[in-house]
Amino acid sequence: MEYVFSNKLASLKPSAIREIFKSLSDPSIISFAAGNPSPLSFPVEDLAELSADIFKNSAAKALQYGTTEGYGPLRDAVEERLRNKFNIDTADNETIITTGGQQGIELACKALCNEGDVVVCENPSFIGALNAFRSNGARTVGVPLASEGIDPEMLDKTLSGNPNAKILYIIPTFQNPAGVTSTAENRHMVYDIAKKHGVIIIEDNPYGELRFAGTDVPTYKSFDEENIVIYCSSFSKILSAGMRIGYVCGPREIISKMVVAKQVEDVHTNLFFQILCHRFMTERDLDGHIAGIRRLYGRKCSLMLSELDGHMPPFVRYTRPEGGLFIWCTLPGGTSSDTFVKEALKRKVAVVPGTAFNCDTEAPSDSFRLNYSMPSDEDIITGIKRISDLASEMFQAK
Amino acid sequence: MEYVFSNKLASLKPSAIREIFKSLSDPSIISFAAGNPSPLSFPVEDLAELSADIFKNSAAKALQYGTTEGYGPLRDAVEERLRNKFNIDTADNETIITTGGQQGIELACKALCNEGDVVVCENPSFIGALNAFRSNGARTVGVPLASEGIDPEMLDKTLSGNPNAKILYIIPTFQNPAGVTSTAENRHMVYDIAKKHGVIIIEDNPYGELRFAGTDVPTYKSFDEENIVIYCSSFSKILSAGMRIGYVCGPREIISKMVVAKQVEDVHTNLFFQILCHRFMTERDLDGHIAGIRRLYGRKCSLMLSELDGHMPPFVRYTRPEGGLFIWCTLPGGTSSDTFVKEALKRKVAVVPGTAFNCDTEAPSDSFRLNYSMPSDEDIITGIKRISDLASEMFQAK
Repeated sequence: MEYVFSNKLASLKPSAIREIFKSLSDPSIISFAAGNPSPLSFPVEDLAELSADIFKNSAAKALQYGTTEGYGPLRDAVEERLRNKFNIDTADNETIITTGGQQGIELACKALCNEGDVVVCENPSFIGALNAFRSNGARTVGVPLASEGIDPEMLDKTLSGNPNAKILYIIPTFQNPAGVTSTAENRHMVYDIAKKHGVIIIEDNPYGELRFAGTDVPTYKSFDEENIVIYCSSFSKILSAGMRIGYVCGPREIISKMVVAKQVEDVHTNLFFQILCHRFMTERDLDGHIAGIRRLYGRKCSLMLSELDGHMPPFVRYTRPEGGLFIWCTLPGGTSSDTFVKEALKRKVAVVPGTAFNCDTEAPSDSFRLNYSMPSDEDIITGIKRISDLASEMFQAK
Repeated sequence: MEYVFSNKLASLKPSAIREIFKSLSDPSIISFAAGNPSPLSFPVEDLAELSADIFKNSAAKALQYGTTEGYGPLRDAVEERLRNKFNIDTADNETIITTGGQQGIELACKALCNEGDVVVCENPSFIGALNAFRSNGARTVGVPLASEGIDPEMLDKTLSGNPNAKILYIIPTFQNPAGVTSTAENRHMVYDIAKKHGVIIIEDNPYGELRFAGTDVPTYKSFDEENIVIYCSSFSKILSAGMRIGYVCGPREIISKMVVAKQVEDVHTNLFFQILCHRFMTERDLDGHIAGIRRLYGRKCSLMLSELDGHMPPFVRYTRPEGGLFIWCTLPGGTSSDTFVKEALKRKVAVVPGTAFNCDTEAPSDSFRLNYSMPSDEDIITGIKRISDLASEMFQAK
């Protein structure tokens, strides 16, 4: 039988990152391609202890069906953290637990977009979110991302030119892949433009806790007087990625639609780990634990930057992140990075080509993404030397 | 701001079961409304032991990101079980892990249906699946379910009248809510009609392991020579519902589209519990454990049936299931069950009205669903007496 697929999925291809990941089964390859947190960031002993206690004292609850909105005490603890750490007024909003931060983004689009509607994104942006929008039949339109954020004027023009734009998707802090943190001034200007056009903002903040230099910038949600911001985040980068616990805080009315959509996607998120997560938050030192992760990533990022500073030819530019997991490198003179990435893989170093993050899937990219949370110090030193040598050879020759 | 929602979700309302569940916070109510497995069906000690070992020896893997398709050894173990227990030829198919059985159903619809396409269902059917189809913009069309299955002739007519039907959704064994198990003959006839119309069959089999009387009937997937069956099931009823581990086995080409869709919904299913599930399957006695659940449910079902036999007036009919979790009761003379259900709730007994399971959301129903896996023996005796008395009063008076 010849199978016929839905229009919205027929055009959706497995991401370029997935294809690169497949090549990573070769253990001789040094990977800077991951988006994974370091396994050192998992508080294994604490989780093991608390987990044993849950099996002993609350297994009948933890292994049974739960509510779609999530485990009540965890929702409360998350809201408290959002108020205290991110200055978010949770009173007019509702917070639910999602299966990873990814699900919150996908549900928001499902609730708001019809097929053919537009989601405006920073360009480049997170491939998982772009594909979530596309899988709902929405079209992604990019606004170039500069060092202080997207250009408000260009955003205004883009929204004017796309009256069926429903969502503005932004990763304002330690952006994936570009590592950019937009300024407070930029955020306020962008917010006002979104407000003017009646567009909902999805603020995706999975890396917000991972600052190891500089000072915090207020979240969009913290000054969301019009209640147009859906704030998505997760515990993937601060407790465990594999457990798939995320959360969304947003306008009650929108969240209630998202709950209906979540119910038919997976009924609810793994309840045992929701309880485990809540107990870690309330019985252990989450802030102390996160401080340790920040030190670790600060050190790894410094090492990668100093290796780049020492070896990469000066015509290759790269960001100097103050947090998060990624450095974004740009090749000289608008060169497409695809050839560079392929050559790097031949030299047993995996990086992700910028094309994987393009809003326009056919557009070229002169950039690639480096991850420093996963590789060992030794691999950082060896791998950066290899791709620096490659850059010197490829571009000095020209 | 006034929020505008997508067409496909705007019409989707929280299910009637959800509303009934909210009333269950009153502990004085006896609930026959759940779809939950008994907490006695969770192998807590085994899971606790294996879990401790995973934290000790494979935490870095279990807490890290995994692949969207699921944990390889678990996929292999599931396939082996499908071959050995359900006579399913897995060679031409692919099996992936989903976040509960629910996700498999939803992903299949997302992969195959455009907005406006039709999913043909047994009427009544599982509300979670019906809403999953609706959330993808599909329209659900019912074919009445009789004791041997849906009528092949009516199915043929329905498919002829709906050329944009893409999926036939069937729960052939211990159907939810009606408790019906269709005959082998019926299944073959239904299969041939689906084949003739080029329609994909979703075979949902979450209760297939829960037979406590009678003999097994071959799954659709076991005779799927045309490779048109997507088989969905889960561990919710045999290990733990809260862990949200399900699986789908279907044609490779369709599954690969579903993987792309799953990636943008939740990246992957909780990896720790996938590993835990695999270790339970391979290191403990899953069949022995399931035998215990069957005995428990067989005993509970017998008790509820004998109480119904003893007290319910004869003009109320009910099914005599050979497995699963539910008894389906039908009131005399086409009476709508809504009033009965409301009156029962006043007498502190919760049951689910048949309208909750209707393909046509506006249609009335003369039936309601009883669950016997959750209530205690004492509650079964007290609760059945109360609703039997209610039926006698309501209908004897007429």
